[in-house]
Amino acid sequence: MTIAVAGLGTVGAGVIRVLDTHADLLTRRCGRELKVVAVSARDQTKDRGIVLETCEWYDDAAEMARKADAEVVIELIGGSGGIAKSVVDGALDAGRHVVTANKALLAHHGTELARAAERAGVALAYEAAVAGGIPIIKALREGLAANSFDRVYGILNGTCNYILSAMRETGRGFDEVLAEAQELGYAEADPAFDIDGVDTAHKLAILASLAFGTEVDFDSIYTEGIRHVSPLDFEFAEELGYRIKLLGIARRTPSGIEQRVHPCMVPLADPIAHIEDVFNAVVVDGDAVETTMYEGRGAGEGPTASAVVADVVDIARGRTAPAFGVPCGELTAPSPAPITQRTGRYYLRLTVVDRPGVFAEIASALKENNVSMEAIIQRGRAPGEAVEVVLTTHETRDDSVAATIDAIAESDAVLEPTRLIRIVSFG
Amino acid sequence: MTIAVAGLGTVGAGVIRVLDTHADLLTRRCGRELKVVAVSARDQTKDRGIVLETCEWYDDAAEMARKADAEVVIELIGGSGGIAKSVVDGALDAGRHVVTANKALLAHHGTELARAAERAGVALAYEAAVAGGIPIIKALREGLAANSFDRVYGILNGTCNYILSAMRETGRGFDEVLAEAQELGYAEADPAFDIDGVDTAHKLAILASLAFGTEVDFDSIYTEGIRHVSPLDFEFAEELGYRIKLLGIARRTPSGIEQRVHPCMVPLADPIAHIEDVFNAVVVDGDAVETTMYEGRGAGEGPTASAVVADVVDIARGRTAPAFGVPCGELTAPSPAPITQRTGRYYLRLTVVDRPGVFAEIASALKENNVSMEAIIQRGRAPGEAVEVVLTTHETRDDSVAATIDAIAESDAVLEPTRLIRIVSFG
Repeated sequence: MTIAVAGLGTVGAGVIRVLDTHADLLTRRCGRELKVVAVSARDQTKDRGIVLETCEWYDDAAEMARKADAEVVIELIGGSGGIAKSVVDGALDAGRHVVTANKALLAHHGTELARAAERAGVALAYEAAVAGGIPIIKALREGLAANSFDRVYGILNGTCNYILSAMRETGRGFDEVLAEAQELGYAEADPAFDIDGVDTAHKLAILASLAFGTEVDFDSIYTEGIRHVSPLDFEFAEELGYRIKLLGIARRTPSGIEQRVHPCMVPLADPIAHIEDVFNAVVVDGDAVETTMYEGRGAGEGPTASAVVADVVDIARGRTAPAFGVPCGELTAPSPAPITQRTGRYYLRLTVVDRPGVFAEIASALKENNVSMEAIIQRGRAPGEAVEVVLTTHETRDDSVAATIDAIAESDAVLEPTRLIRIVSFG
Repeated sequence: MTIAVAGLGTVGAGVIRVLDTHADLLTRRCGRELKVVAVSARDQTKDRGIVLETCEWYDDAAEMARKADAEVVIELIGGSGGIAKSVVDGALDAGRHVVTANKALLAHHGTELARAAERAGVALAYEAAVAGGIPIIKALREGLAANSFDRVYGILNGTCNYILSAMRETGRGFDEVLAEAQELGYAEADPAFDIDGVDTAHKLAILASLAFGTEVDFDSIYTEGIRHVSPLDFEFAEELGYRIKLLGIARRTPSGIEQRVHPCMVPLADPIAHIEDVFNAVVVDGDAVETTMYEGRGAGEGPTASAVVADVVDIARGRTAPAFGVPCGELTAPSPAPITQRTGRYYLRLTVVDRPGVFAEIASALKENNVSMEAIIQRGRAPGEAVEVVLTTHETRDDSVAATIDAIAESDAVLEPTRLIRIVSFG
């Protein structure tokens, strides 16, 4: 089977390395040889440690996607539009199968691309777009095809999980740990997509579409990143029996599909609380299979190449499926349930002046908004000075908590914006 | 697509329930309707809470497999031969796809059946045979198809994991916990296959064949169950920082494929140490993807039916693969590496008379066999009476430890057979 590769960064070079190293093994598993016939990247002269002499070189990846004599086009350029989209559009138009690792593209244009693939009668495969080498797309679409799903959630961004793990272990602040993650190559020079939760939201949009049979609906996702998580929050989390994780959570609710990305207080009894460092994990609850969890490395050359090549093997074997599990015509339109309706428990951290009457003001803000307090902790005493007060609530609605925070902000005893972290419970 | 179901026990009834409950969803996912046209079981009059009126009833499952007008035959009778084998043989001979949950059958006849399926040009699918609803067969065969594997291991028997978890939590003895597991329906009336490790070995044989591309080689598996694990071992494990788990482990070694099932001391830092109760988990190390772990319920109506129906959906979609990942002609003959060559660390528990000179005798047995001791613990003192002594070794060979135990047995200070549990390390 002939293959064209668009993009020869870490993952692109990794894919070519795997195809080369395991040529014999892959031929046995595919029933035919896999042959890279064309490649495209920005710089033809760069030494990537891979042999490209037998491939046709294209400076223009979109041209390659349309013209190269390849049955499969692998898109590893990235980005939600631009050249990556031209490559995928061009390949599908030309009737070539597409394999991509591009979560941003799928989050923004997934349904449209799936329709184009369906029209062309080719595969749109994207195992590498979510959770790196963990075959979670295949699990949801095929391995768990007997199930109706009510919930899928996970740690989908290794950069954030590394930062949160390191902050907890070392007690250091966000900026310092981020800088270290950048030095180690775990975070990009521009880390915004990762740390602001956008990358997690891209992946969540894909998982939700697969799980619930809905059109990809990235725009409805409530997204909050990890910039505001402070070493103090880790101290309180420890005391309260939680780990802080950035989760992507999608749920089917009576009022529609809820999709949200935000830092969570996860009880220690929950297995996902123990996924540390750059590891990813996805938890799927199916009505027949009950809870299953999948974990592994969510990024990097080897894991991502593993997923890309698995898609190629599937195509070589003729093992295809509708991109989102059912034909595009069967995907239902998005009906988002807003996060304001989410009910659950909440952790609030307030920075207030330590003086008589402050607790009464807080209590009154809670009461006005019908929010019932579970516990309150003040660390230390400093009359007249700033102190940190943490309170946790009983089950309540997200909008009630937001209103409570607004009410609290009006007190002149409150010195800093109140920080909120949602407490989750998946039992 | 027409389906015949052989065996209407818990899983068989569960499969029919899932096909019925999710008829619309499955039609969308398959692109065509799934229709059970024939069933066979021992007792036609039994109320199973499922509608069978539209199905043809067969008293003889093997006759059904040969004659029913069905594209797929699902075998849920169980057992390594007899009627289950006749059903599968008959279905394959008649050119029908086979879906089975029967690990014993595959462990004993897997390669032969895969050959018959290949000749007939039909699928032999068995996701439900290993780790219940966890789609580990699909992960190994397809999702991780880009990898060469050096190791696969897991907790593959929920009954044993339940018993070991309960023994640890409650401090109770094996027999008492087994009786409770039988009352709860977690253990069979005749529990031998589970607690002696045979069921785990059946599943391991299948995983090893898939991972290493070798013919199924059940007979070479070293198998040891959990009958001899004592509450004392849990106390020492706690003290030493281990959890006791029954693992199935398959490794590629320079001298061949090593397959073994035995109780293990698993370091607490290893994620698999924390898989408790009836849950299963499988860890796969691939050269590209690195370590991935899959966990969920390993048995029961829903999880097993989930896996069976996933196989049916794959067949309906035309998503098939060679049963063991590569065509049968490419499977290599078994070249078993015996456990005697295993090197690792060991936990030994001795029951000896507390008297001067005993430690010298033990030390001499170790020295004779070139086994280097890491630590020794004696709990309490009871001069002239029986005491428990635990010793752990540095890296050494399995046969050296066996010889050491034989040498120790010769001392008249040794009152009970010495108990050995292998310490594992997957780092």
